[in-house]
Parts: sequence; structure tokens; C-alpha cells
Amino acid sequence: MSEEVPAQTRVRGRRPSQGEPVVDRALALLDAFDATHPYLTLSELSRRSGIPASSALRLAGRLLEWGALERDAAGRFSIGLRLWEVASLTPRGHGLRQVALPFMGDLEEVTRQHVLLAVREGDEALMVERLSSHGAVAALYRPGGRMPLHSTGVGLVLLAFAEAAFQERILGQSLMHQPENVPVSPAALRRTLAEIRRDGLSTFRRGAPGPIVSVAAPVHDAQGTVVAALSVVVPAENAEPRLLGPAVRTAARGISRGLGLRRAPGTA
Amino acid sequence: MSEEVPAQTRVRGRRPSQGEPVVDRALALLDAFDATHPYLTLSELSRRSGIPASSALRLAGRLLEWGALERDAAGRFSIGLRLWEVASLTPRGHGLRQVALPFMGDLEEVTRQHVLLAVREGDEALMVERLSSHGAVAALYRPGGRMPLHSTGVGLVLLAFAEAAFQERILGQSLMHQPENVPVSPAALRRTLAEIRRDGLSTFRRGAPGPIVSVAAPVHDAQGTVVAALSVVVPAENAEPRLLGPAVRTAARGISRGLGLRRAPGTA
Repeated sequence: MSEEVPAQTRVRGRRPSQGEPVVDRALALLDAFDATHPYLTLSELSRRSGIPASSALRLAGRLLEWGALERDAAGRFSIGLRLWEVASLTPRGHGLRQVALPFMGDLEEVTRQHVLLAVREGDEALMVERLSSHGAVAALYRPGGRMPLHSTGVGLVLLAFAEAAFQERILGQSLMHQPENVPVSPAALRRTLAEIRRDGLSTFRRGAPGPIVSVAAPVHDAQGTVVAALSVVVPAENAEPRLLGPAVRTAARGISRGLGLRRAPGTA
Repeated sequence: MSEEVPAQTRVRGRRPSQGEPVVDRALALLDAFDATHPYLTLSELSRRSGIPASSALRLAGRLLEWGALERDAAGRFSIGLRLWEVASLTPRGHGLRQVALPFMGDLEEVTRQHVLLAVREGDEALMVERLSSHGAVAALYRPGGRMPLHSTGVGLVLLAFAEAAFQERILGQSLMHQPENVPVSPAALRRTLAEIRRDGLSTFRRGAPGPIVSVAAPVHDAQGTVVAALSVVVPAENAEPRLLGPAVRTAARGISRGLGLRRAPGTA
């Protein structure tokens, strides 16, 4: 078996006993897919996962049988619908989406642009849902994809309400605005986060790919913890953030109430 | 290792060689979760997966580390957001949803009830997305959940346009209408499927839990194959299926065009 297990996989496991590296390798096969690589041939799957083709094929066979992977007529692998079915049970994704969707629909109807819902995952924001009208402005990020906390409206809200230690760690990094790749001033970011906490609202402007304004508000769970952020993203021309703010905050409060929050949290 | 691998798992694998049963057991842990069991304690996880607690804990540890599972403060396991992130790459789920969502939003705005998108998965329909207005009628099925092909509007459309051999296999089963649990007449079902193929539309009525009408139409891919079904579900009272039909067909054609279909497929 030794030639089957890549060294890095074996080292990564804290308990390199009989079965677990195989699980890690199966997960590495899933990791090989991303938004720009939703279909992979066997050799691409092998190369991107670092698993020899023979092992990759055998492991993929188990995943195909269960439905975690699918294979098309051309022999290319993709993520399977059965995996999505199971994954839709994740409380932070599915349950939150179900509560949020009607409120997001209301906002989308009013703004006719993008409405986003995101949660924090590691050091980034993960877009759990987006409703987009026909003809909405070009979007930089996609549902199921990750966004930087420090240069998106929803990310700033999630960062503003995160634990202090987490905030300090992020503020200690050399951050760049995305997609412009311009350095972020830690002092300015610190002020922005304080304003978001004070107002319960973030108004964020971005110049590329097109000038947009994102107006974002926090979503609280039953315990009052900020568990998600809701935003509308509209073209900068004609945008009236002062009018959008109350709509976004109202919808975010509706979602919070749907998650069990009894009364609106104070905003200082 | 022998006492670690439950017999049924070992028998199920076609190649009971070194690593694969461990992958099957990891997948069995994921299988232990469902819509009524989104949170599981270790002992529930062990019992529902048929994997001894010690092995379940070790395997769950690998899945936790990668993010396929999460664990809350009470020690309960749930499906992890990282799994949802990867699973959202499934072409039949995510890509389809992204194309369909704006059209679904249009329909929901017009009908103010439920708008459903489903695909066939095995012998059932899988709900890929649902938009529901505030105050919409009680829903029997949920997004990410399965629905019977023979007793839902979207299911009947998917069945009507499935391969003949698949249809015959389903028609050969002793089917019961759900949730009423009344036998389905194969001859009547065969006529219904022929009408759906002729009209490019299904109008399905259900009495429980409340009287509803579902009006559903097929979604075609670039090759003209029916890959999904779109429906609106409205309360039976005041419903005017003859008016809803054109709206649903129009939205379904819009989605088909978004998937690359050049011209509307013939309906006779």
C-alpha cells in the first residue's frame, strides 16, 4: 500500500493509522474541483489531487457509486447531485437560505439588481445565496464561492461583528483591496468597522469591474450573534444608499426574526 | 482491522481491497443525516450509519478537519459548509439554478406562491430550487429533497420526457399517489404522460395537505434533452391553470435558451 499513499497525505493526518489517509485522498479528489474546473478528466483529477491515476480511478469509482461524483459521456468527472443533496442539509447553508429567500425576493423586487447572503467561513465570506435580476450589473463573485472579508460589503459586516481576536488577526495581515489590488490601510479599516458596528450597516463602493455600491446589514440568530450578512449590490450611478439602507436593514431584521431573534439588537 | 469494518459494508464493495471500505464508511456517515435529522450526536451517528462509535468518531474527525462535517458546542454533528461549497459545483444543481433563478423570480412575482425547479435523480425528482412568497400555501416537499415522479407536477414532466425503457419500468411498479396513499392506475398515468408530451405542459391537482394545482413545463438543454422541470404551485381555489400555463412555459423556454437551446422544441 505504501506506494499508493502520497507522502504529504500521510504526514497531514494526526493519526496515520489504517483507514484515514484513504478518506483524506477521497476528500482530495473532491478538492480538485473548483468553479473554473467543474469537469475534470481522470488525468486532470489525478494531477490536481496529487493522487496517482490508478488510485484516483479506484477511489473515484467508490464516489461515483455513491453519487458524490458523476461522469459524462466523454468520461469527464463532475461533482454529483447526491453530494449536493446531502450538503443541502448544512444548517448554515440550507436552513438560513430557506428563512432568507422570501426576504431576499422582496429586496430583489425593489432593487432589480443583486441581493446577496453570505456567512463567514474561515478567513473569508462564503456566498450562500444570490438573487439577480435580468440585466443586473456584472458580478465579481458567485454563489457557493468565497469573497474577501475586507473588500466586500457583506464581508465587512461579518468582520465588523466578529470576535475581537479574529478581527485583530485579520487587521494584522497585509490586506489588498480586490480586484483593484490596492493596499488596505489598517487604520481606515478599523474606523470603517467601528462605523458599521455603530450604524448596523455597511456602505461599500468598488470601482471594478464596474462602479457598484453594496449596502449590507447583519443577520442575527436567536442568541443575538451575527451569523450572516445581507446586501444589495447596485450600479454606483443613480444609487441612493441612504434609501437602500432602511430596506436592507428591514429585510435583515426579518431574517433574524425568522431565525428566532425576539427583539432587534441594539446598534449602540 | 476486521472488527472495524461492518460486514454489510465489506459485502457491498465490488472490490473489497485495502482502502475503499473506509471511503464507503465515510460516505455512510454522511448518509446518516437527513432533513429530519440535520444534527446527530455521536451515538446517533453510530447507530444510523451502522458504524461502531469508536470508528465513527475517528472517521468523523477526518471529515471535521476537512469541513465535510461541523460540530456544535453541545457536541452534535451536522453537515459542514465546506461540503456545501464543493457540492455547489455540481453542474446539474448549481449551473442550472444560476440560469433559472431570474426566470423563477419573474414567475414568483406574478404568482405570489411557490415556484419549483426539479431534476430527475434515480427513480425520483430532486428539488433543486424553490422560491416561495410570504404566506404561500403549505408545501409538502423541500429544496434538496426528493419527490415522487408520479405524483408531483414536476415529476410527471420529468417522467413524460424520460427514455421509454425508464418509463416502462416505473409504470410496471405498483405506484401510490402521495400523500393520499391511493393506488395509481397505470393506464391513466400512461394517458397523462402522453398528454404532457403533446401539450408540453402538466396540470396536476393534489388534495392534501391542502388543495393545490401544480402547473409544470419541461426545461431543455442545448441538445434538446429535457434536463429539468419548472412549476408553479398555487392554491386550487381561484387558480386559473389556463392562464398559468403560458407563463410557466415561457419561463421554462427562457431557462432552456439560457442553457443553450437555439429554438423551442416541438411539442407534438
